[in-house]
Amino acid sequence: MWCDRIVTNTRLIDLRSDTVTKPDEAMRVAMARAEVGDDVLDRDPTMRRLEERVADLLGVDAALWVPSGSMGNVIALTIHLNRGEKFLAPRGAHVLDSELGAAAWLSGGMPDPVEWGDRPGHLPVEAVRTAGGNAPYYALRTTLLCLENTHNAAGGVVTPPDEHAKLVATARDVGLRVHLDGARLWHASVALEVPPAALTVGVDTVQVCLSKGLGAPVGSLVAGSAGFVEEARRVRKMLGGGVRQGGVLAAAGLVALDRITSLASDHANAATLAAGLAELGWEVDTPETNIVLTSTPDAGATLERLRRVGVLAVPMLNRVRFITHRDVSAADVAEVLERIGGIGWR
Amino acid sequence: MWCDRIVTNTRLIDLRSDTVTKPDEAMRVAMARAEVGDDVLDRDPTMRRLEERVADLLGVDAALWVPSGSMGNVIALTIHLNRGEKFLAPRGAHVLDSELGAAAWLSGGMPDPVEWGDRPGHLPVEAVRTAGGNAPYYALRTTLLCLENTHNAAGGVVTPPDEHAKLVATARDVGLRVHLDGARLWHASVALEVPPAALTVGVDTVQVCLSKGLGAPVGSLVAGSAGFVEEARRVRKMLGGGVRQGGVLAAAGLVALDRITSLASDHANAATLAAGLAELGWEVDTPETNIVLTSTPDAGATLERLRRVGVLAVPMLNRVRFITHRDVSAADVAEVLERIGGIGWR
Amino acid sequence: MWCDRIVTNTRLIDLRSDTVTKPDEAMRVAMARAEVGDDVLDRDPTMRRLEERVADLLGVDAALWVPSGSMGNVIALTIHLNRGEKFLAPRGAHVLDSELGAAAWLSGGMPDPVEWGDRPGHLPVEAVRTAGGNAPYYALRTTLLCLENTHNAAGGVVTPPDEHAKLVATARDVGLRVHLDGARLWHASVALEVPPAALTVGVDTVQVCLSKGLGAPVGSLVAGSAGFVEEARRVRKMLGGGVRQGGVLAAAGLVALDRITSLASDHANAATLAAGLAELGWEVDTPETNIVLTSTPDAGATLERLRRVGVLAVPMLNRVRFITHRDVSAADVAEVLERIGGIGWR
Amino acid sequence: MWCDRIVTNTRLIDLRSDTVTKPDEAMRVAMARAEVGDDVLDRDPTMRRLEERVADLLGVDAALWVPSGSMGNVIALTIHLNRGEKFLAPRGAHVLDSELGAAAWLSGGMPDPVEWGDRPGHLPVEAVRTAGGNAPYYALRTTLLCLENTHNAAGGVVTPPDEHAKLVATARDVGLRVHLDGARLWHASVALEVPPAALTVGVDTVQVCLSKGLGAPVGSLVAGSAGFVEEARRVRKMLGGGVRQGGVLAAAGLVALDRITSLASDHANAATLAAGLAELGWEVDTPETNIVLTSTPDAGATLERLRRVGVLAVPMLNRVRFITHRDVSAADVAEVLERIGGIGWR
Repeated sequence: MWCDRIVTNTRLIDLRSDTVTKPDEAMRVAMARAEVGDDVLDRDPTMRRLEERVADLLGVDAALWVPSGSMGNVIALTIHLNRGEKFLAPRGAHVLDSELGAAAWLSGGMPDPVEWGDRPGHLPVEAVRTAGGNAPYYALRTTLLCLENTHNAAGGVVTPPDEHAKLVATARDVGLRVHLDGARLWHASVALEVPPAALTVGVDTVQVCLSKGLGAPVGSLVAGSAGFVEEARRVRKMLGGGVRQGGVLAAAGLVALDRITSLASDHANAATLAAGLAELGWEVDTPETNIVLTSTPDAGATLERLRRVGVLAVPMLNRVRFITHRDVSAADVAEVLERIGGIGWR
Repeated sequence: MWCDRIVTNTRLIDLRSDTVTKPDEAMRVAMARAEVGDDVLDRDPTMRRLEERVADLLGVDAALWVPSGSMGNVIALTIHLNRGEKFLAPRGAHVLDSELGAAAWLSGGMPDPVEWGDRPGHLPVEAVRTAGGNAPYYALRTTLLCLENTHNAAGGVVTPPDEHAKLVATARDVGLRVHLDGARLWHASVALEVPPAALTVGVDTVQVCLSKGLGAPVGSLVAGSAGFVEEARRVRKMLGGGVRQGGVLAAAGLVALDRITSLASDHANAATLAAGLAELGWEVDTPETNIVLTSTPDAGATLERLRRVGVLAVPMLNRVRFITHRDVSAADVAEVLERIGGIGWR
Repeated sequence: MWCDRIVTNTRLIDLRSDTVTKPDEAMRVAMARAEVGDDVLDRDPTMRRLEERVADLLGVDAALWVPSGSMGNVIALTIHLNRGEKFLAPRGAHVLDSELGAAAWLSGGMPDPVEWGDRPGHLPVEAVRTAGGNAPYYALRTTLLCLENTHNAAGGVVTPPDEHAKLVATARDVGLRVHLDGARLWHASVALEVPPAALTVGVDTVQVCLSKGLGAPVGSLVAGSAGFVEEARRVRKMLGGGVRQGGVLAAAGLVALDRITSLASDHANAATLAAGLAELGWEVDTPETNIVLTSTPDAGATLERLRRVGVLAVPMLNRVRFITHRDVSAADVAEVLERIGGIGWR
Repeated sequence: MWCDRIVTNTRLIDLRSDTVTKPDEAMRVAMARAEVGDDVLDRDPTMRRLEERVADLLGVDAALWVPSGSMGNVIALTIHLNRGEKFLAPRGAHVLDSELGAAAWLSGGMPDPVEWGDRPGHLPVEAVRTAGGNAPYYALRTTLLCLENTHNAAGGVVTPPDEHAKLVATARDVGLRVHLDGARLWHASVALEVPPAALTVGVDTVQVCLSKGLGAPVGSLVAGSAGFVEEARRVRKMLGGGVRQGGVLAAAGLVALDRITSLASDHANAATLAAGLAELGWEVDTPETNIVLTSTPDAGATLERLRRVGVLAVPMLNRVRFITHRDVSAADVAEVLERIGGIGWR
């Protein structure tokens, strides 16, 4: 299996995911000093501060800390959906492919993967428009649109505010709710140079992540109306995601939020990596954020060769995915290109 | 809504579905004379005869009567699938689109619609081959392939024995189980001039219907190994599908089975209808069984116009679907063409 | 196992359940003549008549035919309950013990068996009063009370209108909905000499059965508000309980409804049986309807001995249960007592 | 509501739960220094150490960190149970009453609360013996016994090794699996002066907690066979409990494990509190561990009065529960008694 038992005497450069980033000294100090309380009984004070700050950033009423983005997404879907209801999500969406089918198991709703439009990861407005509307009593009803910005499986592509607004307005027109998987919404915000709230306009709920790229060890938030968050708090408890002195984690999250703008370096590194790979003859998509997708004749073989020179990546829909993040420097990227260049394959 | 409040003084010709067929005199007499027992406690004797006969016809160990094809499918999926598992089904499959998402709600498994290959309703073997295999612990695992023969949404197209065998063998190679939605398997068998058992080779489970085209008022069967049927009997009871003196319905089913070969007339009528529509300038797929699919500029408007001349059809993936069945004669088809021809639209 | 492979040359007298009653000639004729339609697409006309008649009888807006009482109950519970919610039902209730746990699987709600009060099968009002009310966000909320009239496991005991009204009013006071499992509500109505609607006052939903005692081969109804029935129709379809030409079964149901008053004979037979058993030295509860519960030192052994003299009964919470029904005459009961008396055991 | 908006100028003494304990300096330092990794991709090294140490302590193959005891329990129940299966748990068990019904929602199994035997919180062996065994196909099958040691709702009562062994052996005899909710197993172990592994003999799975009494901010473990933990890791991911650099929390857990013996002080404090309350005329159960249960005429009123003198407790099955823990000293207990004694009520 591609990710375990990596034995090498070369220093590993880990481009598998931005989830591998580790808390640094400053973040650890913040955690050690965090003011805490029993979040189930009283709401932990640091948790509360984090939740309020994220709600503000996202331009929504309220937010709730959850142990993972998967839990944030599945809570939202579980609340939005009921048996007999269908939700749309772009082909390759995290909620479809990367959460072990929890959306189907827990929400009871029926997923419908929508094929991308003319550009990878972008949903055709038409697919949304035709999905809603009336249906006879014996028919599945489409009630929810799930967006993902940036879209991971399509290579971290961003949906800009106007396209987002059009999709949301169309969804509304035909009676759909909208959930946004914003695990890398910060990246979209930085790439587009707009505030995060510009990318959540009109959505019912949104999930954002503190441990992808920003370095917090654990945690995401799911956000929406006050009523939604109240119900989400109950569902979180049912799933076992209610924790006690979570302030130690929330403190790391607060530090992480201070670092959003630093994601620009990751984007620059991704651009450098992609350009370098292209020069070496690789077939590479031009990255819009921190994800570099390449097509190789045999993804498995390529990953194995990369591993032998101490470069870790992962397969993604039969392609090879590299992710840059705060624990990978520009020098590391140069080193990666050198290691790959020394061999001449892809 | 397209199917209710039909007010017309023309005699209606109902081509919405072969589910509308009504039990005739002979079938009603058989029902009235049926030997019955408490099927939950003792197994009803007529039920038992029907179940044994269907198992024989399908070349499997055992079969179980269920009130509907939807229940047959969902029982099979519920038994085959577990949380964290994915199943493949052709885009437009009945289990995906026409059972109110029960597959997701009840089985806990994650559906994955597979795009058709070069011909409508036919699955590319490659899509099956690449679906199985190992996956890391944190990934969804594909464990089931759902086939549908004939494939309704693609226009009643048949999968012949060799193509079926190739798909099943591939599924086996990569570790998938196979369920066959054979609601119209009898039609495929008649069209291909092979016994039904030739179309179930290698599957784990299969569902067949007594009320589509054959005229039984109520009932389907789900079939497979003896162990599967034992568990299916339990799940049927949980879903509320265990009935008491079901022999009255099974008796109708036994009569229905005697009539399988008569489906050839429905196929002939469909061919006539399609040819006639084509002559009138409609864009029509050549039917392989009893389903005629046509593309019109506006399905809703076409259905409304048809209704005004007393012809009932239904929308199907934005097209117009006609189904011929035992309560529609060759004369009725001629009449349909005349009514449509008199107006000159589609 | 106590119910299978009964081989005897004595004529069997089957007192296992009133579900074993078979349709008689008149009922079979009605079925054979039933006007039918596609109930999924158009609503079958005989189904519609049955549903309207039952709604009237029960004093509610609307009713929906379902293949079994279990499906009726589970549809109601699935609609009433949500994850995080608890429902109360009397210890031994059918929804708790006799539906394979479908209530937990399908509704997602948490069952809470309430111990009987001072009399078997009767719920203490206090248990209802203390169940509702506010709860912190992290607590299970009780939202539903399930009643059962007559209460099977307690020996077919009836809840009279005033007791029913008190329970319902208390449930309302503390914010609970009420579902009534009335599989044998007709029996309660006959025993109490009140119309069925007197026993449904204030409930949200009620399930009644056509095949217990009344002789219809298949079918129950679940009833409530028009909105409930609309949603119930959807859930029925998801569970696979939507049938096509159900009129053949509904016709039997209409005949069954004409026979409700005849249940009085079953009650008389049960009284005779109980008195006779008591005379023979058995420990017997005085029956209120058609169920006779007896305590014996070893229920399994007693059932086996009964079986050897051609009398069939079933175990019920470690006791032996006899049920009288329309296929058991007064002479049969006399015969049962004679067969038992001839041996002198219990 | 009894737990929010506590406004008082007296120093609060918080006896609501041992979940309120906060990480101290040493624990915070350990967290700040924790070696971490991506636990989803590679398994975090500190997590791994914690998991191995807990498995050793419990005498089982393997253990898995989870964000809460609720998640640990629900993972175990979800893996053990299937639709159509029933589990036994003592009346008042945490899995029944205090996890928002997640056991029913997620496992699909049917809970059956077993009434306590002659002593509160203790299960009669007979209730286990009669629960298992054969059942006809249409009956719910009991397949799991859930134990809870110490039993919270009964007042922290301990089940000693011999009683535990008898229950487990009986469960095995009748074919049941056994899950042990050991959220306060450490307390039982300290009170009984036996190693924790003496209290897990024969169980399939066990859950233990790091944040109750031991002061870790977040985390529990669920443990069992290697195969169970492998599957548990998948279910944890589905529920959203897979975290990334969890080592920061695991480090706190390792410190917590060093402190198990210190729970003896909490038990001593509970004994002092109970004795003092009894002297003041309260009706108090003699505590076996760190939980003190008292009966008062009106639990709500008592809690409110306590709150006014700055003492926090919670209701538990209509009684008042106090819990002693590492953030409550002997002096605090004396202070509590003084505050209560000054008023003379209960």
